[in-house]
Amino acid sequence: MSHWNLDPDRCFSPLLSQSSLARTIYEEIKDLPLVCPHGHVPPSLLANPDATLGSPAELFVIPDHYIFRMLYSQGIKLESLGVPSQDGTQVETDGRKIWQLFADNFYLFRATPTGLWIKDELINVFGISEKLTEESAQRIYDELEEKLAQPEFSPRALFKRFNIEVLTTTDAAHDTLSDHASMHEEGFTSVRPTFRPDAVVNLDAPNWRQNIDKLSEVSGIEVKDYKSFIVALEQRRTFFKELGATATDHAALTAETKPLSDAEAETIFAKALSGKSETSDASRFTAHMLSQMARMSTEDGLVMQLHVGSRRNHNAQIFNTFGLDKGADIPVATEWTRSLEPLLNSYGNDERFKLILFTLDETTYSRELAPLAGHYPALRLGPPWWFFDSVKGMERYFDAVVETAGIYNLAGFNDDTRAFASIPARHDVWRRVCSNWLAGETLKGFIDDEEDAAEMARELAYGLAKKAYNL
Amino acid sequence: MSHWNLDPDRCFSPLLSQSSLARTIYEEIKDLPLVCPHGHVPPSLLANPDATLGSPAELFVIPDHYIFRMLYSQGIKLESLGVPSQDGTQVETDGRKIWQLFADNFYLFRATPTGLWIKDELINVFGISEKLTEESAQRIYDELEEKLAQPEFSPRALFKRFNIEVLTTTDAAHDTLSDHASMHEEGFTSVRPTFRPDAVVNLDAPNWRQNIDKLSEVSGIEVKDYKSFIVALEQRRTFFKELGATATDHAALTAETKPLSDAEAETIFAKALSGKSETSDASRFTAHMLSQMARMSTEDGLVMQLHVGSRRNHNAQIFNTFGLDKGADIPVATEWTRSLEPLLNSYGNDERFKLILFTLDETTYSRELAPLAGHYPALRLGPPWWFFDSVKGMERYFDAVVETAGIYNLAGFNDDTRAFASIPARHDVWRRVCSNWLAGETLKGFIDDEEDAAEMARELAYGLAKKAYNL
Amino acid sequence: MSHWNLDPDRCFSPLLSQSSLARTIYEEIKDLPLVCPHGHVPPSLLANPDATLGSPAELFVIPDHYIFRMLYSQGIKLESLGVPSQDGTQVETDGRKIWQLFADNFYLFRATPTGLWIKDELINVFGISEKLTEESAQRIYDELEEKLAQPEFSPRALFKRFNIEVLTTTDAAHDTLSDHASMHEEGFTSVRPTFRPDAVVNLDAPNWRQNIDKLSEVSGIEVKDYKSFIVALEQRRTFFKELGATATDHAALTAETKPLSDAEAETIFAKALSGKSETSDASRFTAHMLSQMARMSTEDGLVMQLHVGSRRNHNAQIFNTFGLDKGADIPVATEWTRSLEPLLNSYGNDERFKLILFTLDETTYSRELAPLAGHYPALRLGPPWWFFDSVKGMERYFDAVVETAGIYNLAGFNDDTRAFASIPARHDVWRRVCSNWLAGETLKGFIDDEEDAAEMARELAYGLAKKAYNL
Repeated sequence: MSHWNLDPDRCFSPLLSQSSLARTIYEEIKDLPLVCPHGHVPPSLLANPDATLGSPAELFVIPDHYIFRMLYSQGIKLESLGVPSQDGTQVETDGRKIWQLFADNFYLFRATPTGLWIKDELINVFGISEKLTEESAQRIYDELEEKLAQPEFSPRALFKRFNIEVLTTTDAAHDTLSDHASMHEEGFTSVRPTFRPDAVVNLDAPNWRQNIDKLSEVSGIEVKDYKSFIVALEQRRTFFKELGATATDHAALTAETKPLSDAEAETIFAKALSGKSETSDASRFTAHMLSQMARMSTEDGLVMQLHVGSRRNHNAQIFNTFGLDKGADIPVATEWTRSLEPLLNSYGNDERFKLILFTLDETTYSRELAPLAGHYPALRLGPPWWFFDSVKGMERYFDAVVETAGIYNLAGFNDDTRAFASIPARHDVWRRVCSNWLAGETLKGFIDDEEDAAEMARELAYGLAKKAYNL
Repeated sequence: MSHWNLDPDRCFSPLLSQSSLARTIYEEIKDLPLVCPHGHVPPSLLANPDATLGSPAELFVIPDHYIFRMLYSQGIKLESLGVPSQDGTQVETDGRKIWQLFADNFYLFRATPTGLWIKDELINVFGISEKLTEESAQRIYDELEEKLAQPEFSPRALFKRFNIEVLTTTDAAHDTLSDHASMHEEGFTSVRPTFRPDAVVNLDAPNWRQNIDKLSEVSGIEVKDYKSFIVALEQRRTFFKELGATATDHAALTAETKPLSDAEAETIFAKALSGKSETSDASRFTAHMLSQMARMSTEDGLVMQLHVGSRRNHNAQIFNTFGLDKGADIPVATEWTRSLEPLLNSYGNDERFKLILFTLDETTYSRELAPLAGHYPALRLGPPWWFFDSVKGMERYFDAVVETAGIYNLAGFNDDTRAFASIPARHDVWRRVCSNWLAGETLKGFIDDEEDAAEMARELAYGLAKKAYNL
Repeated sequence: MSHWNLDPDRCFSPLLSQSSLARTIYEEIKDLPLVCPHGHVPPSLLANPDATLGSPAELFVIPDHYIFRMLYSQGIKLESLGVPSQDGTQVETDGRKIWQLFADNFYLFRATPTGLWIKDELINVFGISEKLTEESAQRIYDELEEKLAQPEFSPRALFKRFNIEVLTTTDAAHDTLSDHASMHEEGFTSVRPTFRPDAVVNLDAPNWRQNIDKLSEVSGIEVKDYKSFIVALEQRRTFFKELGATATDHAALTAETKPLSDAEAETIFAKALSGKSETSDASRFTAHMLSQMARMSTEDGLVMQLHVGSRRNHNAQIFNTFGLDKGADIPVATEWTRSLEPLLNSYGNDERFKLILFTLDETTYSRELAPLAGHYPALRLGPPWWFFDSVKGMERYFDAVVETAGIYNLAGFNDDTRAFASIPARHDVWRRVCSNWLAGETLKGFIDDEEDAAEMARELAYGLAKKAYNL
């Protein structure tokens, strides 16, 4: 039985002088509370004190598109991984078989951040001590299953053990926020909602019409035209704020923010309501609504987040059988400079406004985003997102943005995950990469001394996220 | 006389702990047989047992656009380098003069992969022991000339000495494959053809009409319309397979793969046959034919390669005087995500299909190619191509793709060369860079141990290429 | 009082073997004279022997958009930094208050090149020995103020102390060059003008009509149509040459170079003169004029520089209040391959022509610029520009271009600055990064030995700039 170790100096440079300074810096920040201002943990997991994390397969494989997309890329069917179908297709239900298949192929994750997170989670959260292989799979399943049944592995117990200071979820504009309301009532205010209106703002969102109806229902405002739509959204923002929200979140294929005239907005919205949208309506309306959301943010103070550049559901066959979020969202090149110009010219100099940007196009870090964030007072840069929430992704991000924007125009870290138990592993990678990067900068003479470096590390690990999100 | 040395630890990190582990890994793979699944060695060189490599100028300078483009960029005329003209322009014929000019300017290749390959080839293949300079040029010419006349420097002898397990050439769809047929007959099956139909598929290819006639001739199928064109191509694919081909290859300016209806394809092809193509016909037809080629691959099992993004013959003056492949092909930005969507939606989930992608736009590695390859089972990523077949090109490639796609969605290495004698040098660079990169990943804690790293190195150096190309 | 130190090995690798070789190389080049072939120092500063550098706030803060954009991005008003307004808005005039605000926020520049330059300038040019902080601000102000009043801190004295061999300024085509004429007369020929006709060539330049009138005035040629416009420009180029110019400079949003017919050029120019330009006229005319400028360069031998990709004055509110060059110019993605094709096909093979390219889109280094420069004899690549004139910007540049273009197709270094006293700090960063990069290449076996590396360093630090600019 081979012992499985996490390198205590993982993510640090192999150069001793650098890893040694990195460790010194890391020691100062590794135990800071976790600030999680953007993520996708289901609020029910924390609202219900009796919630559990489920079986090992339910925890690690079935819901995690980082995992099953890689297995799928090597010819393993999603059916055999137990991913629920939407069209009645039979899928595997035996958690042990699913886990075995995962373990058989865990070698695919060598040298990937997903591999590192899983290993960290198995060792540090669950105390697994042998390497996950074809051979060890069932023993590890036994051990995980046993632990997952214990109260100290309930989401609430882990929330405390993980030292999470605040965690925000992502919630549709038409959500009732019942879980949040119950936590709020209970006084468990470390969990907060985030207002994400994509499903009603993007006219081509799946089930848009039904979502509008739900919006009418939850807001008590009948959405019958553009004006009532805007009023309903404003009502929901207020409601989200009352339950602790400090931010909104918006996803778009492009960063276009050109506003429409009120009349144009009215017309397009009316066409959509009557099911007669034309091809370009949705993209023009989304651009307009981003501008409207910025306007609302200047009024209600909610920080605006913008995630741009994912071509969703690229694989029609997978989408038809399994639905959204199945590892088939593929980035496209993104233009920020011209696209954000309308919005920034209206609100970019406004002291009441804060906009945090996320990209899937790394070429825009140094070319567009850092110059924009190094000028506009309203802008902050979100951390490397999705495929780039990785060791090298972070290193490229720091290398590309800090020379132009400094570190004080950054928004710290987001774990952006639905995998609750992986949160500490993700923050730990960020903290390690920050420490190592700052150590390098110090040794190369770009930071005056260790004291400055440690102060910067505390900001990156903790302070900047709180400031950026008004937490 | 200065002794000329190859650093035994070249391409490794200057950090001792990393270079030492890199060396350990490299020792395990450096003598593995060479798998060369994509290249441009003329088959005649190996079909004819009496073939020779020619004079030093004919071997190193005259046919190699990597060499003469750099000399040309510094004001040295192609005429003076003996590059054959197509319009009757007189060019230098004295090999010694050409060689001297090359040696005088060999310093231009400092810190380039071309410089490293040449040095490796001179030292390791030809046993040259003094540095190539203005002063040593003629002595080295003497020594090379003497060696090149010896039987142990014939292409076949070198093929054996290089330990090449399999080498594929690139052959037009309308080629008779007579050299391949003769090797096949002889039982020399380590050399295989690859089906490259660009010259008949791209309607704007030089001499397209004549190529179609040749296609009719070699296939025995009179290409008189789109239908017979498709039948002729299918016939040729079968013929290539019979002579050992396992793959096809396709070059395109963009990655567009949108299919036409049969009627549209008929119409465009008919216009082309009658010399009346319109401007956009060629690009639309190429996109369509890529889709057709994918369809054929699902049926006959030939692996499909796609090389995208080279704007060919950028310099009209050079093209008019010297023709194709004269160092004036310049990359353009490439879009993969939307462009491949039609093809991947038809064939990307098909177990019978394999598609290997090559790009000249490094920004697409992490943004588009790795996410695509990390999802679609049919996709594999080819190694860094052309300008990026270099130490830093490889390092950027690994850094950009592995975190998202792992190493098992890669297709190993291609030398992609017409310079037969440079093959070992090129594979050696790849093997060294792999070893060094894996050493770094291991030391940073992203690979569990040396054993895993060595296994990954064997895949990258040997196994993945064989699997990707069904060899 | 904390002592403030510059790391003697700043910009070098923390790896001892590399920094040690880097230092050896650096020692050979650090005292070479400074060649400054492109910059924005006001010629009056050097033409007038009694000129001074002004107060500390006037020297370091008020005119430097690198400084105040970062402060602005964190919510500090340009008014409070004394940046002069154009619309009568009151701004701070107390230099000590401005300086204090700068010092309070100097931590924002940690790990930025601007921070490094300022620190170097304060320590090495002005002998400041304590760290710039909120607390030390006024003491340092005193010391700077005292020094700036001394004759050895006059621009001319510093010019000598900095060991500047040649410095070129950037001057409008309609400039009288009176300062240059007076220096020329005096025999102070180390300062030379550069011909920059953007303000008359770009039809949408602010005050274009007035600039044309000035052009008529200074050239003595009444610009009344396209033909006289061309003649006037040719006259000015001759005049600039007589005062020592060896180069022209051109800024454009895109790299388009498609020429117009004479008739089209006539028509567009006539429309502009009568104030009736249409939307696309300016961009088409700029493209045409770039081609014309190349033609003139083949005739008069002035080296052509092209700076592409800055979307100027992105922030309308800042532009309206404070005008041009206020830190709100943001890069956009740039296409070179197709855009330069017309110009390069006309002049790219011409022995009389030299074109130096500058980009704000780093993705084009390896994809387009290095392949172009590694082929066309007329092309040279300018150093990393603006946001990329930084340690990591330079490292990425070398890593991206040298493997394809070698170092001999580069144009050495430009400081490109209006901050005269920062010139040595900027050249020093380049020289250090070159030394460290060459040390790495040598240790990895890509350069034969230290001697070759030192020769390359001398070229990069001194020789290539002189050759590229015919200095």
